[in-house]
Amino acid sequence: MRGAGPGSPAALRQMNQAHVLAAVRRADLLRLGEIAELTGLSRPTVVAALDELCEAGWVSFCDDGPPGRQRVGRPARVVRFRAEAGFVVGIDVGAHTTEVVVADLDGVPVASARQSTTGAHDRTQLLGVIRATVHDALTRSGIPRNHVMSVAVGSPGIVNLDERTIVQAPSLPGWASINLAKELRSSFRAPVLVENDVNLAVLAECWRGAAATTRDVVFVLWGERVGAGIVIDGRLHRGSAGAAGEVGYLNVLETAGGDAVADDDGLGPFERAVGSRAIVAMARAEASRPRGRTSRIAAAGPELDALEVFRASEAGDRAARRVVDAVIARFARGLAPLLLVLDPDMVVIGGRLAGAGDAMFEALRASVRRLCLVAPQIERSMLGEDAVAIGAVRLALSDVEERVLPRLDSASLPRRAATTRAEGRARAEAPA
Amino acid sequence: MRGAGPGSPAALRQMNQAHVLAAVRRADLLRLGEIAELTGLSRPTVVAALDELCEAGWVSFCDDGPPGRQRVGRPARVVRFRAEAGFVVGIDVGAHTTEVVVADLDGVPVASARQSTTGAHDRTQLLGVIRATVHDALTRSGIPRNHVMSVAVGSPGIVNLDERTIVQAPSLPGWASINLAKELRSSFRAPVLVENDVNLAVLAECWRGAAATTRDVVFVLWGERVGAGIVIDGRLHRGSAGAAGEVGYLNVLETAGGDAVADDDGLGPFERAVGSRAIVAMARAEASRPRGRTSRIAAAGPELDALEVFRASEAGDRAARRVVDAVIARFARGLAPLLLVLDPDMVVIGGRLAGAGDAMFEALRASVRRLCLVAPQIERSMLGEDAVAIGAVRLALSDVEERVLPRLDSASLPRRAATTRAEGRARAEAPA
Repeated sequence: MRGAGPGSPAALRQMNQAHVLAAVRRADLLRLGEIAELTGLSRPTVVAALDELCEAGWVSFCDDGPPGRQRVGRPARVVRFRAEAGFVVGIDVGAHTTEVVVADLDGVPVASARQSTTGAHDRTQLLGVIRATVHDALTRSGIPRNHVMSVAVGSPGIVNLDERTIVQAPSLPGWASINLAKELRSSFRAPVLVENDVNLAVLAECWRGAAATTRDVVFVLWGERVGAGIVIDGRLHRGSAGAAGEVGYLNVLETAGGDAVADDDGLGPFERAVGSRAIVAMARAEASRPRGRTSRIAAAGPELDALEVFRASEAGDRAARRVVDAVIARFARGLAPLLLVLDPDMVVIGGRLAGAGDAMFEALRASVRRLCLVAPQIERSMLGEDAVAIGAVRLALSDVEERVLPRLDSASLPRRAATTRAEGRARAEAPA
Repeated sequence: MRGAGPGSPAALRQMNQAHVLAAVRRADLLRLGEIAELTGLSRPTVVAALDELCEAGWVSFCDDGPPGRQRVGRPARVVRFRAEAGFVVGIDVGAHTTEVVVADLDGVPVASARQSTTGAHDRTQLLGVIRATVHDALTRSGIPRNHVMSVAVGSPGIVNLDERTIVQAPSLPGWASINLAKELRSSFRAPVLVENDVNLAVLAECWRGAAATTRDVVFVLWGERVGAGIVIDGRLHRGSAGAAGEVGYLNVLETAGGDAVADDDGLGPFERAVGSRAIVAMARAEASRPRGRTSRIAAAGPELDALEVFRASEAGDRAARRVVDAVIARFARGLAPLLLVLDPDMVVIGGRLAGAGDAMFEALRASVRRLCLVAPQIERSMLGEDAVAIGAVRLALSDVEERVLPRLDSASLPRRAATTRAEGRARAEAPA
């Protein structure tokens, strides 16, 4: 066989290393024999792979069993993945808040920070808020910037992955056509990935949320905006132009203005029909009628929130109930096409309005069942407001897994994290 | 390394064989050196793999260059995939016609047959038609049944792959809950796969039709029924219950009866709005009005066909034009959710109504553009009425590729097709 072809010694060694690392990452702690069993590799092959992995700083050896316990004889040595070998940063840029999460290579958050973005009126101010929040989170984590291996940012709007620009983002001022990766690259030595926020939310729910055991999932963000993130067969479906799941532009009301055009507030037809602004407007209209005057929503001040309308309905307020019934019927009519097209295993509802009570979910399930051939499970988001930032952490981890881990060269690890060559070899040669 | 683990000699040998076979299948004819280059394997490894492949009947050696030409010296020997080593059968069962295609392992049809199914009033009669059509096609091909390695059937309805039953098929009498694979298994010694017909049509268009270079494709069948087949990232998306793409149940008209319930004819709301029956009904209503009395469609007899309405419109008939305009507007409203949800690279329109002229396609593209953020390419099916049977051939070939080819044991090949052991070895040892 040739030097670099499939099955060559170099390719085999790298493949074996990747197998060993994958086995160690999946389990918490592994003995040498367990690694051999899991990978199907011989003990000498495992030892050789661990030697190089340890040298590069990806794994370390420690003694078996709980610490401080009395043991007889030499303790068995176990291998663990060094999740602290590097870090990733996940960023959620929203119209109201920016959130930053710093996590280790197991995806465990080590620090986070939040700042309001409502005061940011242009892209310079918004970028300023993002940079300050990143600084804040990194300071809290105590991790130097050069230990960050990958950064992912979730943003509203359609993201063009080729040009790394945000094509349409009506909800953020001055955000359209920004090259966010380029703007933030100067803050890190690591690559910066940009993705649509709802796409990240569905990745998060599939990773550590409501859909953790599900292959085909639709996440529907329901707040001022409405959008869907789609995972098919465990993988994000972005669409030809990154516009898959843009259901905010569905026309569910047979009215003029069904064209896919955003209004002055940047909202599409479905958002204008069921988004939180629409709900507040419907509630005000209902409260101004004679039959609605005694309603709780009539008593609410100018700061009426859409979620309050759901809560009033749950508390028995009739006017609120009429609004909620109409909203759920409309929302089901928007979900129906998603479900008829995709037939997913599960729909996860997230965003602010997923904070409504179980009664809303029950009513929604009943409405959807009438409109679809096969009714999927409909669940509430488990990650709430953190879904996008957690999804960004997941995307950054995937980037590390695809870009760095298969190469496994020590150059890609920060100096502090790598153990010395001699130390690594000594450990690998003295397995349990 | 262990005997059967990754990287073991046995696993490597099988992997090398599969690599070599894949290279030979992709190209028409290959010399030994070319195979070594394409696979990155050494010449001795290639010779060993070819030895076993030839022995099992998958490849054969022949002389290079066009036959009958004068050559100097010993001709270079080339390897070819023996597409005639086995055959597959693709079956399209429709409400009007059953079509059977017999193809070799390159997917090249060697014989086909068609029979009308309109006279079949229950499942026994329908199965009788299918068996007779298969018999007809195999007789024409001259291929014995035991040389058929896999059979695939396309049927209307939702197909449950786990139980291999057809769950809903309103357009075929007595078809619901039939286990088609079991019913047809007795006719073959090969596995019988069953799939929704529109799902097969999209596979066919991606294989040898309008979408041959496209990864994310939606095929929309437009006839009496309306359904969609979805390919995402080159793979069929079936949905959790095999019901993905059932857009016939979309409610595009804000009318009562928007629930996902079939009418007496088994048609869903979208089919009742834009299917060929709806078009004929709209045309008759238009023709009965005073302004439509002079129309060509008024002159048509009781056998008025929906396609005639499109043709009359193209010929300048005003009443027909009004019907077509309304139908296209409705059809675009049904396509819009598909496109907003999936954002595919291409939409292929097939079925009887895809026979309408280019004017219809132009009008449809213009309507869709207004309803979507990103307008995909909209193309006419290239395979027409054969799409489902060709897709069934593709599915059966994939079954052979997944089930038989990676194992490559001679037992899985019909006796006639395998070369003798001695012949195979002699050829493999004397490469060019």
